[in-house]
Amino acid sequence: MDPLFTLTTGPVDIYPEVSRALARPISYDYDPVFLHHYETVHGKVARALGTDADHTVILQGEPVLGLEAAAASLISGQDTVLNLASGVYGAGFGEWAKRHCGAFHEMRVPFNEVIDPQALSAVLDAHPEVSIVCLCHHDTPSGTVNPADAIGHIVANHGALLIVDAVSSFGGMAITPAGCQADLFITGPNKCLGCPPGLSLLAISDRAWEKMKANPTAPRGSILSILDWEGAQRADQPFPFTPSVAEINALDAALDRYLSEGPEAIWARHALTAAACRAGIKAMGFTLWAADESFASPTCTAVRTPEGIDEQALRALIREHHRVTLSSGRLETLGRLTRIGHMGPTAHPLYAVIALVAYGSGVATLTGRAVDIGAGAAAAMAIIDGASPLTP
Amino acid sequence: MDPLFTLTTGPVDIYPEVSRALARPISYDYDPVFLHHYETVHGKVARALGTDADHTVILQGEPVLGLEAAAASLISGQDTVLNLASGVYGAGFGEWAKRHCGAFHEMRVPFNEVIDPQALSAVLDAHPEVSIVCLCHHDTPSGTVNPADAIGHIVANHGALLIVDAVSSFGGMAITPAGCQADLFITGPNKCLGCPPGLSLLAISDRAWEKMKANPTAPRGSILSILDWEGAQRADQPFPFTPSVAEINALDAALDRYLSEGPEAIWARHALTAAACRAGIKAMGFTLWAADESFASPTCTAVRTPEGIDEQALRALIREHHRVTLSSGRLETLGRLTRIGHMGPTAHPLYAVIALVAYGSGVATLTGRAVDIGAGAAAAMAIIDGASPLTP
Amino acid sequence: MDPLFTLTTGPVDIYPEVSRALARPISYDYDPVFLHHYETVHGKVARALGTDADHTVILQGEPVLGLEAAAASLISGQDTVLNLASGVYGAGFGEWAKRHCGAFHEMRVPFNEVIDPQALSAVLDAHPEVSIVCLCHHDTPSGTVNPADAIGHIVANHGALLIVDAVSSFGGMAITPAGCQADLFITGPNKCLGCPPGLSLLAISDRAWEKMKANPTAPRGSILSILDWEGAQRADQPFPFTPSVAEINALDAALDRYLSEGPEAIWARHALTAAACRAGIKAMGFTLWAADESFASPTCTAVRTPEGIDEQALRALIREHHRVTLSSGRLETLGRLTRIGHMGPTAHPLYAVIALVAYGSGVATLTGRAVDIGAGAAAAMAIIDGASPLTP
Amino acid sequence: MDPLFTLTTGPVDIYPEVSRALARPISYDYDPVFLHHYETVHGKVARALGTDADHTVILQGEPVLGLEAAAASLISGQDTVLNLASGVYGAGFGEWAKRHCGAFHEMRVPFNEVIDPQALSAVLDAHPEVSIVCLCHHDTPSGTVNPADAIGHIVANHGALLIVDAVSSFGGMAITPAGCQADLFITGPNKCLGCPPGLSLLAISDRAWEKMKANPTAPRGSILSILDWEGAQRADQPFPFTPSVAEINALDAALDRYLSEGPEAIWARHALTAAACRAGIKAMGFTLWAADESFASPTCTAVRTPEGIDEQALRALIREHHRVTLSSGRLETLGRLTRIGHMGPTAHPLYAVIALVAYGSGVATLTGRAVDIGAGAAAAMAIIDGASPLTP
Repeated sequence: MDPLFTLTTGPVDIYPEVSRALARPISYDYDPVFLHHYETVHGKVARALGTDADHTVILQGEPVLGLEAAAASLISGQDTVLNLASGVYGAGFGEWAKRHCGAFHEMRVPFNEVIDPQALSAVLDAHPEVSIVCLCHHDTPSGTVNPADAIGHIVANHGALLIVDAVSSFGGMAITPAGCQADLFITGPNKCLGCPPGLSLLAISDRAWEKMKANPTAPRGSILSILDWEGAQRADQPFPFTPSVAEINALDAALDRYLSEGPEAIWARHALTAAACRAGIKAMGFTLWAADESFASPTCTAVRTPEGIDEQALRALIREHHRVTLSSGRLETLGRLTRIGHMGPTAHPLYAVIALVAYGSGVATLTGRAVDIGAGAAAAMAIIDGASPLTP
Repeated sequence: MDPLFTLTTGPVDIYPEVSRALARPISYDYDPVFLHHYETVHGKVARALGTDADHTVILQGEPVLGLEAAAASLISGQDTVLNLASGVYGAGFGEWAKRHCGAFHEMRVPFNEVIDPQALSAVLDAHPEVSIVCLCHHDTPSGTVNPADAIGHIVANHGALLIVDAVSSFGGMAITPAGCQADLFITGPNKCLGCPPGLSLLAISDRAWEKMKANPTAPRGSILSILDWEGAQRADQPFPFTPSVAEINALDAALDRYLSEGPEAIWARHALTAAACRAGIKAMGFTLWAADESFASPTCTAVRTPEGIDEQALRALIREHHRVTLSSGRLETLGRLTRIGHMGPTAHPLYAVIALVAYGSGVATLTGRAVDIGAGAAAAMAIIDGASPLTP
Repeated sequence: MDPLFTLTTGPVDIYPEVSRALARPISYDYDPVFLHHYETVHGKVARALGTDADHTVILQGEPVLGLEAAAASLISGQDTVLNLASGVYGAGFGEWAKRHCGAFHEMRVPFNEVIDPQALSAVLDAHPEVSIVCLCHHDTPSGTVNPADAIGHIVANHGALLIVDAVSSFGGMAITPAGCQADLFITGPNKCLGCPPGLSLLAISDRAWEKMKANPTAPRGSILSILDWEGAQRADQPFPFTPSVAEINALDAALDRYLSEGPEAIWARHALTAAACRAGIKAMGFTLWAADESFASPTCTAVRTPEGIDEQALRALIREHHRVTLSSGRLETLGRLTRIGHMGPTAHPLYAVIALVAYGSGVATLTGRAVDIGAGAAAAMAIIDGASPLTP
Repeated sequence: MDPLFTLTTGPVDIYPEVSRALARPISYDYDPVFLHHYETVHGKVARALGTDADHTVILQGEPVLGLEAAAASLISGQDTVLNLASGVYGAGFGEWAKRHCGAFHEMRVPFNEVIDPQALSAVLDAHPEVSIVCLCHHDTPSGTVNPADAIGHIVANHGALLIVDAVSSFGGMAITPAGCQADLFITGPNKCLGCPPGLSLLAISDRAWEKMKANPTAPRGSILSILDWEGAQRADQPFPFTPSVAEINALDAALDRYLSEGPEAIWARHALTAAACRAGIKAMGFTLWAADESFASPTCTAVRTPEGIDEQALRALIREHHRVTLSSGRLETLGRLTRIGHMGPTAHPLYAVIALVAYGSGVATLTGRAVDIGAGAAAAMAIIDGASPLTP
């Protein structure tokens, strides 16, 4: 049976209008209407990112393409990279960075902690040669959010370029390329924007464009190339290759939703849903993965798996009994936590209640332990009812 | 105004059921239903390709990804490549091949001709060291079809590996990996299968798997990797990264159509549409691009632009007056020909008539010359009416 | 803002596959494919109703058309009607009956009670002249279910014809034309089958066909005619007028779902959702409208509005704060109760939890009273967790 | 196999955006968003009709409901009706009129002619007691258009009320309630507006409202009632019964298209398509049904069936060979003509060419006669190319 509630960390449930946009007629990419349409959607991406068309690129593959392309395009053999690793995805980016850089350093914290800006400052002071810093803003497999703006400030003062993976945070909380002073900012529509996976969205600073153009090893004539797409959004310019027409249509509808509902309102409902979820998790006696709730993500709640429980069996049981799909951990966090996504259309408070009762029921059924599901629901509702209505 | 008739060479108009499949709910990639669904769709790809699941890979990007990945994965510094170039795309593949090979040869014919198997045989005899041969089956920017099966036979006898780009031919004519003895066969759903662009479909021989695994420079941990996807279709295996869920759903519907309508019936309607189109073009006094009609493509009719005509202006006028979108040439053929696509849902005879009257009208209006549009329509209808009904 | 959860008593949320079926291409009604399609869908209706094609009619308007047509077609000036009124809809049917009958009797019980078969038996004994009995099986504005099978048995013994309004019960519980011995059984796809409103589905006994044909005042040449549609489903017969093509497509998908998931499994999830809902309502200290829970509907839970509350304001608040849409009462029950629908796709247990916490939160917010939402959620989950998994 | 080209007179092919609108989520009819939405759509209907909300009604059934309801609501036993019959549908309306009127007259002309205003004037002079005149503007089974504005002027001078059936003309040519001074003007979205069948749209004059309210036999509490819907579009008023939510959504999109593309531009493309079609039919040696081309419809071309041809077999052959669906005649015109629809999305000139070559091919194949299909296509293209571009 299909799931009824996809409360995951991506792919996520999409907005109804995005679903209908996927069903729009497919245009030839050089049809004049599509050329204009692409430039318009590209402009909406820029507007959502708070930048402009010349500093925005859409790549035709899900954000793993954007991340790999960023590493390959920006990092050269002359670079010393400092990779910030507070989770599986941040650590993973280091593997791409190592392929291209001259020297590599990593600042690593336990995967339920986040990067401390002060500590970063000290590392950079000790390594003045660092030319590129890599940050995963929201390390999804941990559900933790790094202080990107503070980190960006320090990196900017240091003079290094900053790559920010904001794939699963952009659109769900207050993170922008300008706010964190990112030179390469990578996100995607398939998380908080409520689209299917298939595209990467990049914001690129002037410095980053210059650096990539000067980088002899930056991909060109390749699906991994960012450079190939410079200016390609203009209706009078050719595409390097065929864009993903259906995904562009979907993105168009998702951005219309994002810009018309309003980023602040959307961020507020992500935050409220997560706050309600965390309250309920704690009220049922479970433990958040994040060492400190202050950096728990508003787009994903990671719950530490209670002792003695097979996390995969737990999710399978929840899926079977309640038709609720939740996300597992990844690599180091696999089996140690369960993730409840609050992204896009499911970033509404009552979805937290669904997740809570399903999770509580799952643990109780699997273990035979008593779980106070009522306390969980009540705690969540107390948060929800204490908030102002979301729609003023 | 949106086009009414998208008679292009890709992206093409999609089937109605493919459009609806795009609107299916988006699943989490690790939801058990999606894991099973992916394996099922992968199996349908294998069945359509005439191979099996272990010799099939879906890559998550439009076929340019499949082609670049093929070059990067199969070709190593030990290889001597012979690239067969009878058109823009065949020639273009050489650029990817050169990045990876030790030595590079090219057999090039005028872009309105095709590769002569006898001549190829001679070249291979002169270059016994050739270890990989690269063929573009249907060079779309020329609308010409190389004799892939004969070429494959010669290459196999020589002992080299064969890469075949069948992107715009597979699904519209009798071409299969087995028939042409391809080791790496690359196609996509966005041409004759009637899907949107966004995926690559590969058939891979045992020899090609072995060669890629032994190739130290074959991409791994990359969007360009074929190796990463080995076995990933199995419901109990992880994906290297998130697949394009909506495109997989679309592909599912397209393959259901392909397999239920039947390849032979589908090939027949592509062939009949193109035959009617060619007859009409000639009857109106225009010239086919292909030097010999015997190798004109059943999925695309390339018409040589009459002297003194601005081809871009011609297509623009046709688009504006008749809301018919046609394709231009590419690079060397740009401006010299117009392409009428017969792919997927528009591979039905009456679409040839639409293209003919729109093209004839366009030339007449643009130049003031008399064009016998009636003769064009009549010639096409004579072919169509002479054929047996398509649906027995 | 659009609702997120439509937990109403119709129109209801529709199944995803029904939504996609609405987007199918629209056919000309006399296209051979549509003629065959219509006959096929009609056959599925018959199968779902447990009858056959000759005893089934689809009318092209939402079920109010089916009900009015039933009264106009079956009841003549020679008839003595006994109308059974246990709620607003049952009583309302009497108005139609009075227009056509010779004599009219009504057996009326309080609108939170149901018809007692024994009492009915007595009434019929006292009125041997009664020729037609009219029953509303599930009187939706009260959320109460009459004992249709027992009533049908008594009416059959009496010899009268029986009209059964099963609009909001069929498809969600064990009610069939044969089970209740209905001569005219009226339902629609827009309740438990998960379709949009726009069609009526009728099962007609041999006796009813004969009676209608003999009735000189039965509508003919009219949208109100049932007789006009006799045999019209056959692919070689004309339609009296154009059928609602999109709605027929939707019905097709809904019936595929109904027949493949299986009526018993579907009835079970309706029943479990309603049981969970009732448990939660009571646990929060609220009162069911039904005087006895044994006849509370499995497809709709009616909750008596607590003293001093403006029911309209309560629903508006729930809608605004939680984006949950609930149904009001109608006429005599308007303002006195709120209805939570469990129909079609929302007949899954966790939707009961959503309704409960939203309702509890609404009352608490509106009145400032303490509501034990946790107890409500816990009671519902206890019912849900106590049940066997729905999907064996 | 499904048709590729539905060139019929209704149900017709729908616009892509209408198809997507059908797939919108289904709302509860009393959800505040739907209440507002319904009022908005109703306002768009009024704007398209050139009237206002108080003089507009949407009925929840395809236009046969609107027509029957008009007859039942407006005509009373005190009325003398003059029915104008220039075709099957005009004559058919007389049957409904006779059910309700006191006295009935009919002015009938051959079904390939239209009503002569002068002759009508004489009839009315001879029958000063006529209180209601009934006109079918475009009698679709004949493809002929009556001079509604001139007729309306005469009827208004006479003082009678005028009922106009504009079902298959409104939206495709210059016909409005005001222009023809209709008191009850009935149309539907399923013809030139490019929607599926399922709704009726009515414009109602002040005189007609008064007459209906004073008419004791006008339906009330019935699906046939117009009166029940007075003011029901207001968001604060209840619906008489559940509206067809999906059809309302479709109508919304269709009206957005109609009002944004612009009625004049839309009428122009209907007219041009029909003109091209007629030119082609004549050039192939076939005969128009209309006795005089000046009153041949811009939304439907009726072609007289050549001697010795089985019209049903002809359409079946065209359908099978070319996957083109055309319409037959009805009753008196059945078997004597074939109708080519030019309605909504297929009211674009190249669709006339498709119809022409399919029709010509069909006759040639069925009879073995030579048909100059080229002349047909050329004549159509001459008309098309002689016209200004449709999109300025």
